[in-house]
Amino acid sequence: MNRAPLTLAEAMQTVAVEIDAQFDRTLTLPGDPRDVLYEAMRHAAIGGGKRLRPLLVYASAVLFNVSFDSAIRAGLAIECIHVYSLIHDDLPCMDDDDMRRGKPTVHKQFGEALGVLAGDALHALAFEVAADPATHPDPFVRAELGFELARASGPSGMAGGQMMDLAAEETRFDLATTTRLQQLKTGALIAFCLEAGAILGHVPPEGRRSLRAYARDIGLAFQIADDLLDVEGDAAVVGKATGKDAQAGKATFVSLLGVERARAQATMLVDQAIAHLAAFGQEADLLREIARYIVERDH
Amino acid sequence: MNRAPLTLAEAMQTVAVEIDAQFDRTLTLPGDPRDVLYEAMRHAAIGGGKRLRPLLVYASAVLFNVSFDSAIRAGLAIECIHVYSLIHDDLPCMDDDDMRRGKPTVHKQFGEALGVLAGDALHALAFEVAADPATHPDPFVRAELGFELARASGPSGMAGGQMMDLAAEETRFDLATTTRLQQLKTGALIAFCLEAGAILGHVPPEGRRSLRAYARDIGLAFQIADDLLDVEGDAAVVGKATGKDAQAGKATFVSLLGVERARAQATMLVDQAIAHLAAFGQEADLLREIARYIVERDH
Repeated sequence: MNRAPLTLAEAMQTVAVEIDAQFDRTLTLPGDPRDVLYEAMRHAAIGGGKRLRPLLVYASAVLFNVSFDSAIRAGLAIECIHVYSLIHDDLPCMDDDDMRRGKPTVHKQFGEALGVLAGDALHALAFEVAADPATHPDPFVRAELGFELARASGPSGMAGGQMMDLAAEETRFDLATTTRLQQLKTGALIAFCLEAGAILGHVPPEGRRSLRAYARDIGLAFQIADDLLDVEGDAAVVGKATGKDAQAGKATFVSLLGVERARAQATMLVDQAIAHLAAFGQEADLLREIARYIVERDH
Repeated sequence: MNRAPLTLAEAMQTVAVEIDAQFDRTLTLPGDPRDVLYEAMRHAAIGGGKRLRPLLVYASAVLFNVSFDSAIRAGLAIECIHVYSLIHDDLPCMDDDDMRRGKPTVHKQFGEALGVLAGDALHALAFEVAADPATHPDPFVRAELGFELARASGPSGMAGGQMMDLAAEETRFDLATTTRLQQLKTGALIAFCLEAGAILGHVPPEGRRSLRAYARDIGLAFQIADDLLDVEGDAAVVGKATGKDAQAGKATFVSLLGVERARAQATMLVDQAIAHLAAFGQEADLLREIARYIVERDH
């Protein structure tokens, strides 16, 4: 990485500013009847959001001497997928949410057709960014980024998890199935963030085991923390409606374990995640800080 | 290409059977709560459809000695995009169609949430297939397939055209804007089919000019033929409701030019498309036959 190591606060700020700048540049209005589509994409993509996924790509890339620009571009591709999934999850036929990141959701502001379409457009854009020569000069890296991003976001990843989430409204899942749901719905994309840093750094799959283990643990810790925020969080700080899972009668880690055990489980997972980084030196401090942040955040 | 040249009827049949077989294999039910998602994807993807896009990839690949399997896999990726776009276009907030390819649309059969989600899952699957080493051994080819497929389907391609189509309900577009709309909405993906054959065959961009010109002309001819079918076609043969564009007050090539001039224009474009293939010998006969078929089909 061609920059000095950053603290968590510095890295969060740097990554967030850069992701916003990249979205701003990529989503310049074309000045034709497609402008409304670009406005809807900008509404959802620019400003707000923790940019946790691009931050994880950056923190992983730090370990393997990857250029800052490559890390940010891979993070941008993943953030395109994340934002598209939020837009579609918020649709009336899905979770029917009015607010997201403290703003009206895309379909509230631009109408439902634009909600579907802005999500679709960001979905395609993710793969354009991943496979763009500007992201990495090595075509093998670009092809692998595209392939693994697709697997993490499709039916064997995020979309499959969203299907399980829809099914959860009708059947009450046990802890094992709820864990599997979350591993697909949020875990697969988070795991790919860590993998992306290794792919950009030409680390072969067998060299990614400890990062995969770290990713699995923080992914689950992240979801437990989300469930805790849904129960205990302040909607104004969280930026979206809270208490929705309980209303929908869905099993969550909190409903299955109770608040205390859920919190203890999240803390245990974070300790375990950090232990998986033992082979790395201080270049992995950012990943260690992120693991702690994930369960301590208030939004 | 490691098979003997096929007539149009043989090629259509071979490609359609193989695309169905690939979808069947790729969309095996996982045997968990995601089964409904896979069933919705299978409902939309398997059986029916002209498979024009994979056929075009095959016919282009024939020119450059590409393996049959690579051509079919690239065609499968494009067909994933095409099918996802049909599912989303049929949603109540878009065109609100009940029938597609002679069957209920996905949202009619499985509900609206599954319509959104099955489309999203096929969208991701397209890029998984494109970047899969099973599609082509050369990572440069896989990365370029993913990149160009994303550009053809995103806001600078199909999704952008769909936005213009939504805007067309409010403003009556002139011929130039209607042409631009169609070049994005259907033309970009059709053009990519021809390009894909060249990419698979390691033909550099400067060697693809005549194919691009052919693609532009048949893409427009295809849309004019579609508009003619919308006015004159039999819904039972076409497989979906007809007369919808006129009802919606949208400008079409037929409303702008009249039936006779529209038909003459389509014929002229087909002749022009075939003329662009002059440098190729009989290995391009399939492309020539497809061009003629496009304006003569009844569905």
